[in-house]
Amino acid sequence: MCDLFVKDIAGHLGEEVRLKGWVRNIRSSGKLLFIIFRDGTGEIQAVAFKPELGEELFETAKKLSLESSLILKGIPRKHQKLEGEYELSITSIEVIQYAAEYPIGKKEHGPDFLLSNRHLWIRSSKQWAILRLRHRIYYAITEYLHSQGFFRFDSPILTPNACEGTTTLFELEYFDEGLAYLSQSGQLYLETGIMSLGRVYDFGPVFRAERSKTRKHLTEFWMMDAEAAFVDHEENMQIQEELIRYIIRSVLENCLPELNVLERDIDTLRKADAPFKRMTHYEAVEYLRAKGSEITHGSDLGAQDEVLLTEGSEVPIFIERWPKEIKAFYMKRDPENPSLVLGNDLIAPEGFGEIIGGSQREDDHDMLLSRMQAENMPIEPYQWFLDLRKYGSVPHSGFGVGLERLITWMSGTRHIRETIPFPRMIYRIYP
Amino acid sequence: MCDLFVKDIAGHLGEEVRLKGWVRNIRSSGKLLFIIFRDGTGEIQAVAFKPELGEELFETAKKLSLESSLILKGIPRKHQKLEGEYELSITSIEVIQYAAEYPIGKKEHGPDFLLSNRHLWIRSSKQWAILRLRHRIYYAITEYLHSQGFFRFDSPILTPNACEGTTTLFELEYFDEGLAYLSQSGQLYLETGIMSLGRVYDFGPVFRAERSKTRKHLTEFWMMDAEAAFVDHEENMQIQEELIRYIIRSVLENCLPELNVLERDIDTLRKADAPFKRMTHYEAVEYLRAKGSEITHGSDLGAQDEVLLTEGSEVPIFIERWPKEIKAFYMKRDPENPSLVLGNDLIAPEGFGEIIGGSQREDDHDMLLSRMQAENMPIEPYQWFLDLRKYGSVPHSGFGVGLERLITWMSGTRHIRETIPFPRMIYRIYP
Repeated sequence: MCDLFVKDIAGHLGEEVRLKGWVRNIRSSGKLLFIIFRDGTGEIQAVAFKPELGEELFETAKKLSLESSLILKGIPRKHQKLEGEYELSITSIEVIQYAAEYPIGKKEHGPDFLLSNRHLWIRSSKQWAILRLRHRIYYAITEYLHSQGFFRFDSPILTPNACEGTTTLFELEYFDEGLAYLSQSGQLYLETGIMSLGRVYDFGPVFRAERSKTRKHLTEFWMMDAEAAFVDHEENMQIQEELIRYIIRSVLENCLPELNVLERDIDTLRKADAPFKRMTHYEAVEYLRAKGSEITHGSDLGAQDEVLLTEGSEVPIFIERWPKEIKAFYMKRDPENPSLVLGNDLIAPEGFGEIIGGSQREDDHDMLLSRMQAENMPIEPYQWFLDLRKYGSVPHSGFGVGLERLITWMSGTRHIRETIPFPRMIYRIYP
Repeated sequence: MCDLFVKDIAGHLGEEVRLKGWVRNIRSSGKLLFIIFRDGTGEIQAVAFKPELGEELFETAKKLSLESSLILKGIPRKHQKLEGEYELSITSIEVIQYAAEYPIGKKEHGPDFLLSNRHLWIRSSKQWAILRLRHRIYYAITEYLHSQGFFRFDSPILTPNACEGTTTLFELEYFDEGLAYLSQSGQLYLETGIMSLGRVYDFGPVFRAERSKTRKHLTEFWMMDAEAAFVDHEENMQIQEELIRYIIRSVLENCLPELNVLERDIDTLRKADAPFKRMTHYEAVEYLRAKGSEITHGSDLGAQDEVLLTEGSEVPIFIERWPKEIKAFYMKRDPENPSLVLGNDLIAPEGFGEIIGGSQREDDHDMLLSRMQAENMPIEPYQWFLDLRKYGSVPHSGFGVGLERLITWMSGTRHIRETIPFPRMIYRIYP
């Protein structure tokens, strides 16, 4: 008899198979017993008929509690009523463990209770679907990058210097070397990698010690940074757009069951796979002010501005050419207007906010140095970064994708805490 | 004219193309100038002939320093003497930047100098080859796992509890929640994931604050942990063996140029793709004692033991069924001998040491609890881990692969510090 996963059931209709997994739900009605059975790869309704299973086994099965583990033997058939669905006619049941009373029931639980039981909560259909989507999105990103000649180049987490300000850094004692900081971004290190490998990316955890308690903040989250030699601002945006559209297609091809569980509007997602809109920061501010926002030309977009900006847009929107004062020191000056930098944000539709930040990088040693001095940055810890502009500097660009932000959009989830297996927030480090 | 990467040159012989990159080396001889040109994807010898290039451009080109960045136009041809190699007849040279005098020359540098200049050192042929190998090995691991139905499930880095002892933990203040620790292994968290997704893995940085200064120690390194429901000790070892053999084949298929740069003995690597040997810990100790080691039956293998054990073996060796006292609390007791656990190490040949540790996990709640109590572990922080044995416990197994250890073996590199872009060691956190 063949050991099978639920996902492979369609290829084995009519033959007796063995499935191993858990009881999602159970109910009985006279001589019939219905088990919603799950094994990680999918769910199936399994049906036992008392006269066929035998009285003793039937009564044993009826006592199964939620989340009990078991091995089912049975014959998969097409579902009698639901097109494209299957069910299993049970021929035998072997209980592995009767689960203790499961704390997560059908009643509503508050977020704190669910987060404290995150190790169990992840078994629920919705969390299962989001985590499978996370897997697919991560993999689609690496597939696309590899097809474009990017090499994985892991940036360090323990760093001696601060990439973007020091107030939101986690710090720790590093032996006798003084303080070390947990990385907020691998970007600066990635820039070293392009001089060896041409095109590189990293994809790992980054950390921000922000005292913010919103549905958009995690203190530990995953970031993909990509960096490419001889790529300018324009091509950089093309790569970003192709990447996001590739991910949308990969998700639609591979994750329809998950999107259905999440009740995600699939058509809306599909429509985002079309040429993205572009606005300069100046144009965006004009547009927003006409719509009633009080944003000024020298300021960053607020969360509400991002929502307003994408209202009515089916596709993500690039906001490019930002005032240099509100963007990072390493962005290249716009040759057409030295008060701007060649940076871009990419804003997801449906109010999901920023998903990418990118720019062409300053490749001139003296320009970079003067910008660092103007920002009162310490020079010595960044000597290695300046070195890159001394030994064969080249035009180059890159961008960073926030994995969890992307998942909130693709999955239609409003709370970022559900997009990572074990979220870390200001008041949350357990389990 | 077509913009090209060096790796794609063979498809464009005889047509004028444009290449962008750096000067690895340069020499001139009368009317000829030879530039070893690299662009991240590979290297090619580019040749300029004074009468063809013109006097002015030729003299400009002659002044190019090492690591200068440039755009070459030229016509790729088969190398006149070297089979399978190509060279470029230069038709035009555009200098992007004359590099300042490059600090890494042809003379020997000490490791400290090279590590302080790691941001430049990675450009050297050997480091380039190791980093490309790292990319391939990482990707091969995920390819194999995906083919076997494993889903990515990222474990947290910031953790409230200690996985394996507390003396080697990096700790930091986590807001008002007290101390947090940097993860040493995602394994325990992965065990929660199998109850949702069936088979899961993580692959990210882990941390050990060890005060060891050896060529095998990093304080930050990359680990892949895999965990699968309904997999026993035997099948667990099969998965490990298939994974490693898959990686060997992938490296041999994709990285011959890199292995050649590294002067890796390819035949030796190829021979390791054969059925792995197996010994119990007891047998290993007997074997070692017969060879003169002073190891006893209750002790772990030392580095020298690992070398001695694999001497003369073409394939990796599994050491299984260990005394429970010297293995972690979560390993399942051997039903045939309760003083042993169903754990395994996998030792690479050629003296490269342990590359995998794995085991079937204790799935019985009370057995696990009593083992934790016997080791004086705090119970409350691990309540979530014990919960997994209450709500549908199942037989399960997993293992962890140290990425850098694996790279040292595949690349034939004796120093682990060269297998990661920016190594972190007891006296090293810059750059």
